[in-house]
Amino acid sequence: MSNLNRAEQPIGIFDSGIGGLTVVRAIKDLLPKEDLFYLGDTARLPYGNKDRLTIERYSLEIAGLLTAEGAKLVVVACNTASALALPRLHEVFRIPIIGVIESGARAAVAHSRNRRVGVIGTRATVASRAYERAIQTIDPAVTVLSQACPLLVPLIEEGMFDHSVTIEMLHHYLDPLIAERIDTLVLGCTHYPLLKKTIAGVVGDEIVLVDSAENCAGQVVEVLRDGGLENRAERPGYLEVALTDSSNPFFKTADRVLELNISRVQTRIVQGVTLAATPVVP
Amino acid sequence: MSNLNRAEQPIGIFDSGIGGLTVVRAIKDLLPKEDLFYLGDTARLPYGNKDRLTIERYSLEIAGLLTAEGAKLVVVACNTASALALPRLHEVFRIPIIGVIESGARAAVAHSRNRRVGVIGTRATVASRAYERAIQTIDPAVTVLSQACPLLVPLIEEGMFDHSVTIEMLHHYLDPLIAERIDTLVLGCTHYPLLKKTIAGVVGDEIVLVDSAENCAGQVVEVLRDGGLENRAERPGYLEVALTDSSNPFFKTADRVLELNISRVQTRIVQGVTLAATPVVP
Repeated sequence: MSNLNRAEQPIGIFDSGIGGLTVVRAIKDLLPKEDLFYLGDTARLPYGNKDRLTIERYSLEIAGLLTAEGAKLVVVACNTASALALPRLHEVFRIPIIGVIESGARAAVAHSRNRRVGVIGTRATVASRAYERAIQTIDPAVTVLSQACPLLVPLIEEGMFDHSVTIEMLHHYLDPLIAERIDTLVLGCTHYPLLKKTIAGVVGDEIVLVDSAENCAGQVVEVLRDGGLENRAERPGYLEVALTDSSNPFFKTADRVLELNISRVQTRIVQGVTLAATPVVP
Repeated sequence: MSNLNRAEQPIGIFDSGIGGLTVVRAIKDLLPKEDLFYLGDTARLPYGNKDRLTIERYSLEIAGLLTAEGAKLVVVACNTASALALPRLHEVFRIPIIGVIESGARAAVAHSRNRRVGVIGTRATVASRAYERAIQTIDPAVTVLSQACPLLVPLIEEGMFDHSVTIEMLHHYLDPLIAERIDTLVLGCTHYPLLKKTIAGVVGDEIVLVDSAENCAGQVVEVLRDGGLENRAERPGYLEVALTDSSNPFFKTADRVLELNISRVQTRIVQGVTLAATPVVP
């Protein structure tokens, strides 16, 4: 395929579920002409408390589905999959694949004055130390303080954006980071931008929040430009959304809050082996 | 295989994750000579916010793995899978398969004096109305009041059994049921027995808690006896545990609280299709 034809192909974006729609929102804002195909692996979410092998396997399968949709570039709109599966994805696929960690790390280093950066994310993201490595590759003098926040995703998925329970959990997770005098906090999970206002209220004006969705979208712009892959169509791009399971109650909340106006959701099955096709007769 | 040989085979028990270990505890207490093989589908948990087709597919695959282990009987130690996949499991497999709903429904009807029964569970369990159907099949005069409690599993998995946030969420979920004057509350998720004391504190002494784990174990005793499948070995049974993902932080908490002393955890892979084995060359 020539680069000109490839430029007309969609950008593939995936997440373990719905949170990656924050990245879709950011990409649409910066690249209104690009067609976007979003795939949320809602049948197997969340990824954030699972192991590296599982997360790599799932990410390969989902990225495979996106290449089958003709994606010219894949965005891993999930911090957990970016932290644990990006090297393996680069090994397997030849199209550009962009995660959310690197751009978030760059933004954090750029914003921090006192070189004390906090990172919040899922257990798997925090345990991987991916942000720490990425930040210290840019500036080894930065101290990174990480905190796994496993309850934030369920609270966000319940739409409890400013519930007293959410604020109490935020204090539980963030007060120790504030006490360590961070001046920059990376929202290291694509769900968290939905909680940005509440987090800002808890940490105060002195701490800059780094939104990995926004920074990732900026990196997509660069990669498309450098590769000559920008869609030059004279019309607004479409957004197609597919999920691997049909019943995610959080989808409507995210669609509304992010003002994406998604009219139709397709289903893609990521099939497991059919062991059960051979029932054992006792 | 003769019934005598079958009797020496293990009981297979599965759950979407770790919660079903409460059923293991209850079965071990009633049937100390039985060998138990527990399989937790931690790579794809939770099931509770997914759709019927996904839950059926996963349950068939996991029950298939248990029959491959030689299970003489399968216990679906997961309310969501029991509520949504039991009919399909009965269609496919010939060995006895026992869920947690029927025994819980029977116990609820037996305990309730005022015929007002509350049921708490995952979104999928509550939406299925499985408890309502099972209870009203036994006694159509019983009013069933159901409440989905999606945040309880994450709170339990964090070990926050008596945290103020957990108590606030319990009031949020349960106060409306108390106001409706239920006298019996079915803990319709195998995680919830771990929260029994805290729930009892919130609902008070007047409301009887029905523990689906205990009642399910009672049904296993009956089915083994009726089928001549009791293990008559003169030694304590073993407990083998396998998970589909290695990194579940909740496992150790559950093992400790339930005093199971599980020394070794095996891994079983439920393989997805390898779409990613054919990378697309752009």
